[in-house]
Amino acid sequence: MIVRPQQHWLPRLFVWHGSVLPKITSRLLMNFLLSIAVILMLPWYTSLGIKLTVAPFSILGVAIAIFLGFRNNACFARYSEARMLWGQLMIASRSLLREVKTTLPDDEGLRHFIQLQIAFAHSLRMTLRRKPQGDVLAKYLTPNDLHNVLNAHSPANRILLLMGEWLGERRAQGALSDVLFSSINQRLHDMSAVLSGCERIFTTPLPFAYSLILHRTVYLFCIMLPFALVVDLHFMTPFISVLISYTFISLDTLAEELEDPFGEEDNDLPLDAISSAIEIDLLQMVDADVLPHKMTPGKNYQLT
Amino acid sequence: MIVRPQQHWLPRLFVWHGSVLPKITSRLLMNFLLSIAVILMLPWYTSLGIKLTVAPFSILGVAIAIFLGFRNNACFARYSEARMLWGQLMIASRSLLREVKTTLPDDEGLRHFIQLQIAFAHSLRMTLRRKPQGDVLAKYLTPNDLHNVLNAHSPANRILLLMGEWLGERRAQGALSDVLFSSINQRLHDMSAVLSGCERIFTTPLPFAYSLILHRTVYLFCIMLPFALVVDLHFMTPFISVLISYTFISLDTLAEELEDPFGEEDNDLPLDAISSAIEIDLLQMVDADVLPHKMTPGKNYQLT
Amino acid sequence: MIVRPQQHWLPRLFVWHGSVLPKITSRLLMNFLLSIAVILMLPWYTSLGIKLTVAPFSILGVAIAIFLGFRNNACFARYSEARMLWGQLMIASRSLLREVKTTLPDDEGLRHFIQLQIAFAHSLRMTLRRKPQGDVLAKYLTPNDLHNVLNAHSPANRILLLMGEWLGERRAQGALSDVLFSSINQRLHDMSAVLSGCERIFTTPLPFAYSLILHRTVYLFCIMLPFALVVDLHFMTPFISVLISYTFISLDTLAEELEDPFGEEDNDLPLDAISSAIEIDLLQMVDADVLPHKMTPGKNYQLT
Amino acid sequence: MIVRPQQHWLPRLFVWHGSVLPKITSRLLMNFLLSIAVILMLPWYTSLGIKLTVAPFSILGVAIAIFLGFRNNACFARYSEARMLWGQLMIASRSLLREVKTTLPDDEGLRHFIQLQIAFAHSLRMTLRRKPQGDVLAKYLTPNDLHNVLNAHSPANRILLLMGEWLGERRAQGALSDVLFSSINQRLHDMSAVLSGCERIFTTPLPFAYSLILHRTVYLFCIMLPFALVVDLHFMTPFISVLISYTFISLDTLAEELEDPFGEEDNDLPLDAISSAIEIDLLQMVDADVLPHKMTPGKNYQLT
Amino acid sequence: MIVRPQQHWLPRLFVWHGSVLPKITSRLLMNFLLSIAVILMLPWYTSLGIKLTVAPFSILGVAIAIFLGFRNNACFARYSEARMLWGQLMIASRSLLREVKTTLPDDEGLRHFIQLQIAFAHSLRMTLRRKPQGDVLAKYLTPNDLHNVLNAHSPANRILLLMGEWLGERRAQGALSDVLFSSINQRLHDMSAVLSGCERIFTTPLPFAYSLILHRTVYLFCIMLPFALVVDLHFMTPFISVLISYTFISLDTLAEELEDPFGEEDNDLPLDAISSAIEIDLLQMVDADVLPHKMTPGKNYQLT
Repeated sequence: MIVRPQQHWLPRLFVWHGSVLPKITSRLLMNFLLSIAVILMLPWYTSLGIKLTVAPFSILGVAIAIFLGFRNNACFARYSEARMLWGQLMIASRSLLREVKTTLPDDEGLRHFIQLQIAFAHSLRMTLRRKPQGDVLAKYLTPNDLHNVLNAHSPANRILLLMGEWLGERRAQGALSDVLFSSINQRLHDMSAVLSGCERIFTTPLPFAYSLILHRTVYLFCIMLPFALVVDLHFMTPFISVLISYTFISLDTLAEELEDPFGEEDNDLPLDAISSAIEIDLLQMVDADVLPHKMTPGKNYQLT
Repeated sequence: MIVRPQQHWLPRLFVWHGSVLPKITSRLLMNFLLSIAVILMLPWYTSLGIKLTVAPFSILGVAIAIFLGFRNNACFARYSEARMLWGQLMIASRSLLREVKTTLPDDEGLRHFIQLQIAFAHSLRMTLRRKPQGDVLAKYLTPNDLHNVLNAHSPANRILLLMGEWLGERRAQGALSDVLFSSINQRLHDMSAVLSGCERIFTTPLPFAYSLILHRTVYLFCIMLPFALVVDLHFMTPFISVLISYTFISLDTLAEELEDPFGEEDNDLPLDAISSAIEIDLLQMVDADVLPHKMTPGKNYQLT
Repeated sequence: MIVRPQQHWLPRLFVWHGSVLPKITSRLLMNFLLSIAVILMLPWYTSLGIKLTVAPFSILGVAIAIFLGFRNNACFARYSEARMLWGQLMIASRSLLREVKTTLPDDEGLRHFIQLQIAFAHSLRMTLRRKPQGDVLAKYLTPNDLHNVLNAHSPANRILLLMGEWLGERRAQGALSDVLFSSINQRLHDMSAVLSGCERIFTTPLPFAYSLILHRTVYLFCIMLPFALVVDLHFMTPFISVLISYTFISLDTLAEELEDPFGEEDNDLPLDAISSAIEIDLLQMVDADVLPHKMTPGKNYQLT
Repeated sequence: MIVRPQQHWLPRLFVWHGSVLPKITSRLLMNFLLSIAVILMLPWYTSLGIKLTVAPFSILGVAIAIFLGFRNNACFARYSEARMLWGQLMIASRSLLREVKTTLPDDEGLRHFIQLQIAFAHSLRMTLRRKPQGDVLAKYLTPNDLHNVLNAHSPANRILLLMGEWLGERRAQGALSDVLFSSINQRLHDMSAVLSGCERIFTTPLPFAYSLILHRTVYLFCIMLPFALVVDLHFMTPFISVLISYTFISLDTLAEELEDPFGEEDNDLPLDAISSAIEIDLLQMVDADVLPHKMTPGKNYQLT
Repeated sequence: MIVRPQQHWLPRLFVWHGSVLPKITSRLLMNFLLSIAVILMLPWYTSLGIKLTVAPFSILGVAIAIFLGFRNNACFARYSEARMLWGQLMIASRSLLREVKTTLPDDEGLRHFIQLQIAFAHSLRMTLRRKPQGDVLAKYLTPNDLHNVLNAHSPANRILLLMGEWLGERRAQGALSDVLFSSINQRLHDMSAVLSGCERIFTTPLPFAYSLILHRTVYLFCIMLPFALVVDLHFMTPFISVLISYTFISLDTLAEELEDPFGEEDNDLPLDAISSAIEIDLLQMVDADVLPHKMTPGKNYQLT
């Protein structure tokens, strides 16, 4: 995702990419067809004494809107927290390098330490996207380290341990006093907090029943809505029914997308761009010669 | 709980396990039967001049939905905080071990210290699930320690004290400087915060009246609803009444489940899986040979 | 308050203790009687051309429900924060003792230090409940200290100062290095934060107008409601009016209870039990022989 | 503000002071008169084919209530945060003095340091109330310091600098080790956070348009309401219209009061009382002989 | 933005600047014209059997109001957090200088260090406003530093590194002990947190679909509203339709403004004024002779 160039309010109504509309078109179409069927069937089932009115749907609509609002809030909070954790990774990475560089300005292993830092960001990204990370990490780790990292239950945590050991060696050699060692260690702890925070969001979705109850009530509500609207609106039923269904179903669907912010769908976090930015920033801080290219948004202004 | 494989929106409407539906089926059935009784009794009590309309129920429905929304939020916040506390236990456990291992790389008691760390997680888990913990802890503690831990008012707090004493001995021997000792102690303090946080959620439910008032109004609302709907909807009353009741009662019931996140119901936290993950992670950090098996979800994609 | 044994949903509808129902029975009864009076007076005032309809009450009902929801949230946040502060007192007390005990294992004054810690918890409790604390504190403090503490503007803050001086003496004697002294001092700072936090909740209620406006609109709404309902509902007016009034008035009343969480009403915090738990935990950490009894809930599952 | 003695629910309905009612009486009166005018004009403008119904006002009323609720929340959050910042000033002031006193028990300049601490609280208070502070600070500062403080862009920040220099001198003289110096400095940093936090609330109101849009819609809603109500309610229009207007306008007005919590209106923070409490507490911690009087609430239970 | 002088409630209804009204006038006018067209077309399309009623719009209106409320909350949270971050920059800047000045009172490079601090604030401001920063920074940085800063991916981060190196040199020379060095470094870390926090808000808007769905439903709702209102209100349709549209569209538009709080529109943060205040405060702390002018609000009480 990325900031789109500001649009006039009118053309924006017709944007297709990045909205959830493509995902739910078929459901809205079914709602439209159902509404037409309801109009045609109206005389028949009215003759059976069956009728629905809008009033009870008003109660139900408000209740669902309130609960859906709370759930959307909860899902958005996950998305927000995930973004904030990656922001904290940026903070910790920069501060860690700044502190190491200013206290050990002449250390020859500094370049190796930066490789570990960059590897941490990429390893976390690949883990959260359920992708194999061997190829990516091979660029940054020694074969032996790579072997240990890939075999670990949590690869990124193993990289943290490698960074801790790098610092521990400097302390054992007397290059780092205990004060500086424990102060720099605090940054590793911050990165550990980012790691566990992401793992938490990744492994613990919203309570399943929470999503399910709302999913069910939203769909039942939308399915029964045409029956209630048809008495008053007749030929206008399909249009109003689809409009109301769009409001509810699109927010239900968006909530689902936001619930897992680490995916690669339109509204997910651009982890590729963020970890690339961390890499560029760290390398620039030691005036490295070769930098990866800064990622630029593709068509539809989308970053991955 | 665990991430289920993504389902199409349609089959998901019929999921049974993990939802609260099985719990409330009988209540919804009673609502259905009551609605039918109301249809049959309608001519009789109309003749007595008794009538109800939907309008006052609309006021009541909105009010209950708002209050229920706030309560669900409060219960979900407990669930969320509980999960976050266990995430912080993960953070603290890894950081603690990393710091101890990198500052005391050759300490022979390290394996014993890890056992204490693992015992802490299991002890907390057993306490929160109101289960006896002697058998579980015997694997990790010496008989003497085990005796003291089991007799303590808060067993996990006693384990923390043992860890503190382990560190205090290293300080007394000069292996740990005061700076490192107090830096590592900060991690014990983090674990103490997790412990007390979980105890707080465990011993202090929502104010009883808060749950009770909503419970009462939800049920009274659902019981009187058919009387109000029947005038307009007649034969459709049972269906709409059950749909509205489902929305309100299922959220009331889910709130109750989430209020105590440490239980072993469908929507509770998978403490077994989390503490097992902590154990695996810690053992891998010292390249232990034998690791417990990683827990995998059972049928219905459920972790304990 | 305490976790009640889980009840079936049906009997729970009739629970009396711990709910706010006993407090508001008379008001609901008045509403009932008013409703009956309204039914009797209906022909008379209709003949005067006076009439009310439900529609404007619907607008008002929704608005009040929303505002009441926000206010309940604010009051519950006070209750929650108060509980969290006492949880932080538990954390700080345990960590403080653990750190003192592991760094000064042979100090003869340790028992005296623990007495100060326990006195702090009891002093805070008695202050928040506006009770005289001389008798309680006499068990833990020397006569001289007791005199100073009782004369202080904030007794608990004076106890903190005594604890600081105890630590300061150890530092002056060389038993505590500056690093350990300032690390342990952080725990005193935590306790100071708990103290001031509780004082803040204690002395600063919600803005008075906030409670008052809602109180007024809730009661005016409930008083005028029967006049609006009677046109449609006639004989059913008293029942629906009382049900709606119960929903609004009980939440207004509960909000008031939660606003002052340190009281001794049904839904207030069990400060006796919490401070007793702190005392037991601390004494057990030094293997004291005599412990106070753990508090158990009385009839109605109520802790004080 | 202060805790009023608990009142019976009935007399509380008629409380005048501390509520926002006095402020808005004229507006409610105008609404009442407008309603009467509307009743008189009804036959005339109905004959012109102009009519309004309650239904669209129901949509508008709910929308405004929701937005007003969110805005009230935002304003209350400012009030709450402001109170919390002053609570943190209390925490930092006590801890700072405790740490200085226990590490420098025999320092002759301690009394001077306390004067600086007290001056900080008063200077912050006077700044937030836009009052001249020369006379107040002259009691606590030397003429030279006073001159520098009064000329500073942020007087309280200058006092913090004086406190830092006091500590810096002790460090330069060897009375404070670097560890203690940086530990005590953390408290100055806490006070700096309180200062900037208060300045932020003071200089940055809610986005102007946020208040304005709600202000406008609330008033337009209340002005048009009688036209919609009169068709159904006729003679009752003025009463219901005023009741609904009271609900909306009083909350709009209260939100405005809470938005600037540092003022001296009825529902603002009692900064005089809080800073006086800080002064008493600090002086008592060094057993000063002369203490300022504790502030007690005036008539209407109001503190300044 | 700045605190406007308090206005009487009546004239405030007609304020033009700083509100979002100028932006949406054309849209409201179109709504007005559409409403008139709808009145004229009413007989024609009623004859086609097409009709709309208010009831379904009531469901839709409430749902949109709830979702819009949540979104406005999320956008306001971004605005609030952005302001808080700049407040934290103020805190960190003052504390950093105070600590450096009191520990290195005689350092000749202090003035250079302050220039770096001021440059950081200005660099962050220019980055967030997408403006070239060479000219502004040239006042504060040496040509060599300026070159490195302007070439960096994140210029402000490079300035932080320069500050870290300044401190690292003092440590290498023995002027700063490790304790003080790592304590002061904490302030650089705070500034790093401000930097990354602002970058996060700057680069990550709300999920695009979240804004889009609400944008769409709000406009569709407002476009269809006149068709529903016309049946009941006839000649009054344009007025009520514009009033309701104003409520919804203005809040939608304001949310968009608040979403990007770093812009230069009416309701954005006054970054010029804040960074100028930081500069004045820092220079005054070292009694500099020449200070920049304090920014004062222009006409319409607007700060930039």
